[in-house]
Amino acid sequence: MKKAAIIMGSDSDLPIVAPAVKQLRQLGIECTLRVISAHRTPEAAADFSKSAIENGFGVIIAAAGMAAHLGGVIAAYTTLPVIGLPCSSKVLDGADALLSTVMMPPGVPIATVGINAAKNAAVLAAEILAVEDSSLMSKLVDMRAEMAASVSEKDKNIEEKLKEI
Amino acid sequence: MKKAAIIMGSDSDLPIVAPAVKQLRQLGIECTLRVISAHRTPEAAADFSKSAIENGFGVIIAAAGMAAHLGGVIAAYTTLPVIGLPCSSKVLDGADALLSTVMMPPGVPIATVGINAAKNAAVLAAEILAVEDSSLMSKLVDMRAEMAASVSEKDKNIEEKLKEI
Amino acid sequence: MKKAAIIMGSDSDLPIVAPAVKQLRQLGIECTLRVISAHRTPEAAADFSKSAIENGFGVIIAAAGMAAHLGGVIAAYTTLPVIGLPCSSKVLDGADALLSTVMMPPGVPIATVGINAAKNAAVLAAEILAVEDSSLMSKLVDMRAEMAASVSEKDKNIEEKLKEI
Amino acid sequence: MKKAAIIMGSDSDLPIVAPAVKQLRQLGIECTLRVISAHRTPEAAADFSKSAIENGFGVIIAAAGMAAHLGGVIAAYTTLPVIGLPCSSKVLDGADALLSTVMMPPGVPIATVGINAAKNAAVLAAEILAVEDSSLMSKLVDMRAEMAASVSEKDKNIEEKLKEI
Amino acid sequence: MKKAAIIMGSDSDLPIVAPAVKQLRQLGIECTLRVISAHRTPEAAADFSKSAIENGFGVIIAAAGMAAHLGGVIAAYTTLPVIGLPCSSKVLDGADALLSTVMMPPGVPIATVGINAAKNAAVLAAEILAVEDSSLMSKLVDMRAEMAASVSEKDKNIEEKLKEI
Amino acid sequence: MKKAAIIMGSDSDLPIVAPAVKQLRQLGIECTLRVISAHRTPEAAADFSKSAIENGFGVIIAAAGMAAHLGGVIAAYTTLPVIGLPCSSKVLDGADALLSTVMMPPGVPIATVGINAAKNAAVLAAEILAVEDSSLMSKLVDMRAEMAASVSEKDKNIEEKLKEI
Amino acid sequence: MKKAAIIMGSDSDLPIVAPAVKQLRQLGIECTLRVISAHRTPEAAADFSKSAIENGFGVIIAAAGMAAHLGGVIAAYTTLPVIGLPCSSKVLDGADALLSTVMMPPGVPIATVGINAAKNAAVLAAEILAVEDSSLMSKLVDMRAEMAASVSEKDKNIEEKLKEI
Amino acid sequence: MKKAAIIMGSDSDLPIVAPAVKQLRQLGIECTLRVISAHRTPEAAADFSKSAIENGFGVIIAAAGMAAHLGGVIAAYTTLPVIGLPCSSKVLDGADALLSTVMMPPGVPIATVGINAAKNAAVLAAEILAVEDSSLMSKLVDMRAEMAASVSEKDKNIEEKLKEI
Repeated sequence: MKKAAIIMGSDSDLPIVAPAVKQLRQLGIECTLRVISAHRTPEAAADFSKSAIENGFGVIIAAAGMAAHLGGVIAAYTTLPVIGLPCSSKVLDGADALLSTVMMPPGVPIATVGINAAKNAAVLAAEILAVEDSSLMSKLVDMRAEMAASVSEKDKNIEEKLKEI
Repeated sequence: MKKAAIIMGSDSDLPIVAPAVKQLRQLGIECTLRVISAHRTPEAAADFSKSAIENGFGVIIAAAGMAAHLGGVIAAYTTLPVIGLPCSSKVLDGADALLSTVMMPPGVPIATVGINAAKNAAVLAAEILAVEDSSLMSKLVDMRAEMAASVSEKDKNIEEKLKEI
Repeated sequence: MKKAAIIMGSDSDLPIVAPAVKQLRQLGIECTLRVISAHRTPEAAADFSKSAIENGFGVIIAAAGMAAHLGGVIAAYTTLPVIGLPCSSKVLDGADALLSTVMMPPGVPIATVGINAAKNAAVLAAEILAVEDSSLMSKLVDMRAEMAASVSEKDKNIEEKLKEI
Repeated sequence: MKKAAIIMGSDSDLPIVAPAVKQLRQLGIECTLRVISAHRTPEAAADFSKSAIENGFGVIIAAAGMAAHLGGVIAAYTTLPVIGLPCSSKVLDGADALLSTVMMPPGVPIATVGINAAKNAAVLAAEILAVEDSSLMSKLVDMRAEMAASVSEKDKNIEEKLKEI
Repeated sequence: MKKAAIIMGSDSDLPIVAPAVKQLRQLGIECTLRVISAHRTPEAAADFSKSAIENGFGVIIAAAGMAAHLGGVIAAYTTLPVIGLPCSSKVLDGADALLSTVMMPPGVPIATVGINAAKNAAVLAAEILAVEDSSLMSKLVDMRAEMAASVSEKDKNIEEKLKEI
Repeated sequence: MKKAAIIMGSDSDLPIVAPAVKQLRQLGIECTLRVISAHRTPEAAADFSKSAIENGFGVIIAAAGMAAHLGGVIAAYTTLPVIGLPCSSKVLDGADALLSTVMMPPGVPIATVGINAAKNAAVLAAEILAVEDSSLMSKLVDMRAEMAASVSEKDKNIEEKLKEI
Repeated sequence: MKKAAIIMGSDSDLPIVAPAVKQLRQLGIECTLRVISAHRTPEAAADFSKSAIENGFGVIIAAAGMAAHLGGVIAAYTTLPVIGLPCSSKVLDGADALLSTVMMPPGVPIATVGINAAKNAAVLAAEILAVEDSSLMSKLVDMRAEMAASVSEKDKNIEEKLKEI
Repeated sequence: MKKAAIIMGSDSDLPIVAPAVKQLRQLGIECTLRVISAHRTPEAAADFSKSAIENGFGVIIAAAGMAAHLGGVIAAYTTLPVIGLPCSSKVLDGADALLSTVMMPPGVPIATVGINAAKNAAVLAAEILAVEDSSLMSKLVDMRAEMAASVSEKDKNIEEKLKEI
């Protein structure tokens, strides 16, 4: 199976990004975690991206906040699917990162997930890798079933929980 | 190769969506175009989505405007990657559709592209299908090279074009 | 009298939603509380909605945050009035949920109340049920009178309260 | 059957509001159309609202743009359900009217529909009146079936329509 | 000298509004403080407003949050200048109240100050009353001089203050 | 009676501002119209403002778009009430001008009216001058009565007008 | 004197950008115009930027719309001042480009001017080059004087111009 | 070398602004820190700005929040490059200050950096002063190298850091 990469622009985003790493590894997907800055180590970004296919990656998650250019810099050098994870920072609630990530020019898309939605970035990466991997697809189907069961469980207990409020 | 589906919530979005169909077919990807409404034909949405894998689809593009629930309704019934294409309507410039598409709850992601970014929805679909298809990946690499050549060509002629303004 | 239903997309919204349950029960309206996710248990949503009329419901409140599709999924399967209660989550202050709820396509409306406005969702549900129920309408008139009296009381004491600041 | 009222703050909003009148009458609902301004004829607003129940109204649609106070002024004097229809004006795309309408204080809700969503205001009014009127409810169910059929029809013809683009 | 009135929609806004009362009294302006709700005690609002001129008021400050209709309801019944003070509430940072207050229809203006800008509401009220009152105008000129002196003082000490950071 | 001044930052705003001049003159208020730029002729702004009281002005309207600093520059040099009229320009619909005008720091308010609301700027100016001028106040009361009559007239004819749509 | 560069992400932005070229040349500043895309010709961007100092440039203007990464990609490879010119595109009025340009991470600033503010990008570039060039500074002072004279001229003729409206 | 000035509108912004002072001094740039209010000490602003060139300044940073007019007032009186640092205040997250700073009219630009981006304001000031100062430019290049090294270091340790979460 191809590997996934998670690149974040700053290690201060690690608390936001960590659930993505965990989710990927839980699904049995090999995952490389990197700190590469679009603006401070741009050549590392270009190098990583240009060699990503030959290094066995099948999908790249780019997590960044503010003027979140990281996804764009990665996407500029590869035709692998790049998932953009916009991170909120101290002001504007991540609206800046969302727009900087999603509004890409024609021909160079970023598959953007919600603000701080690290788990979804990972699940999307898995869905992409699962298109040709029925065993991984089965794991995703199972995960959905578990999520549904968990909601049903909460549905049963909600009147009880209401009493505590 | 797996097929792509493009589903739009209303046929009034066809002018926005058409470039996605054309781009996919240009890349040699078989593409099914459907009009299915999350709110007016919800069962058709569920039926399509539940059987998408067995029907040979590898990726689904959902195009919708306003309270754009279509992507979410599709994503709820499949573990295939779902690409959300938020369409602008008469007011709010598509900001409503963007937020309705990208801010999905944990576990059910939508790979969102820019507002009205039909070409990017198609390119992303192709990138996803290309992860395990080196021939399609080559086409994408070629397309990038052509885009680069086109920009370089414009770069050479820009002083000339400036004179016309 | 017809019953009211309150459906929330996640039990983490319970603290926001609880006042709606209490308000409805205070007005003597039988109220069913459910946890049903538009994306994780979509079939439960469809099932609930399709059988809501025959199960004696007269109005449904759907509470959800982020890309709040729950109201739309419910409204797709019933012609009962659906009240949308957009819930704020960690970023964007519920603006995403508001737009995802209120900007419905022609033909399938959601009666949207303010962000986190659980009490208003309940009062609106009561007003709807009271259209043909003069006894419930009387209760609502009384509640308005009590609210007015409470404001008048505060009006009288405001200079006193100002001194404490 | 109880009547519906549609009140608009200015007759310049008539082109936006007209589809609501037509939709209501199409459904066989008697509908009174009024021009009453929250700020220029506030007493007319209060008078209309205070006597709405005894005058046989079951629901009131209030259509206004900008600082859209009309719905609030109407809702202040009645416990009938008030549907707010925010209208866009020359700037801000109706975002001002939407917030002015939906963010009501606790106890006095407005059932808000989308910006310029006149048809949805009417359908919601009908849904409310139909709660205790199974004949009207049947008409709404039929209308949904027609909408579904229309979408299915468009679905069948979409490849044909694509060729024209 | 004519009196000023400060009306707030809810006594929960008192901490925001209190500085306005204090500023007005500091300037020797008689100030009446009231709690009147546009939606819960609308007749008190109309009554206050209609009799404001004969009761000796020269200016009215209306403080409200969310769908802040209070200023509009007051302005509808008087030709006195009405100052709108938009208050922030739990979500949206007062952007809703700002738009609900400032975007008034032609002919019925509200003199809007910044979100939570109680001091400025009071200073503006004083400036209005001072147009024909040279003694009050002198106080305002003095207040400006004190503000300037305070800034100059801070300017002198800023390097000192920087060291503490 | 004291005079009113209308200052605009650019003569390109004249089509937006003209109704304010006309409204003021219609009410018999002497009105001086000026083009003064906060950034291009800042000394003219300071000079005008500093001498406004002694030159017989009672109120100043400042109309500007984009980073609308004009009102602030005028207000910095006078204790007269300054009315800010935010003008829309080619992008952002005047939201920039609105925030630049209304969010003034404590002690230096601007009485802000709606985006492009020239008529309201004039009516507010008149209301301010009318606080101590009962004859002008009568004119404003009459104007309100005419507005009410006009709305009532439209109310009577609305069903007729609907037929034309 | 050092040269200025103007780089735009797409030649479709030329109508927006052209005034910057003209303004710079009018001030006697040698100006190179390029079309380089952050995402389609990223290596050209890196190459240009890395060699900008040795090629005699003193300042770089980067003009881009949507997810405007161009300024960031340029700034990543040079310590020259980079001026960001956010361009509006078909939706969102350039708010996306503004945030993508201005919200840069610590250490790598972009000197951002207003949306579509090409003239200001050029004037800022000139101001930067003029810091050590008193002759250019004189030209800028003269330009300001001409702007002031033009405003004063308009100020004199405004009553005349008003009559035409 | 020319000096830098940092002017802030209120000393309450010092915690936001302090890093700019420190960064400039760290780079060996002489830096004057001032508290000058556009609205409370406008003449001090004009005086400072008019004499800034002759007093040896090469660049001015203006830090202000809310309706942040300070940069504009400074820029109105000098042709030196003015860097605008928009500061967030209690509501709106600094979006008001950003728009008030960046959307300047043609001819009078402000080089705007991100909200609260004090370090970037300083680095941009240094970049401007370094255009003709190769020794300062070297320091900036070194600073970039250090930033890159720091990111690389974090990149190496990220898996370790992940374990702690």
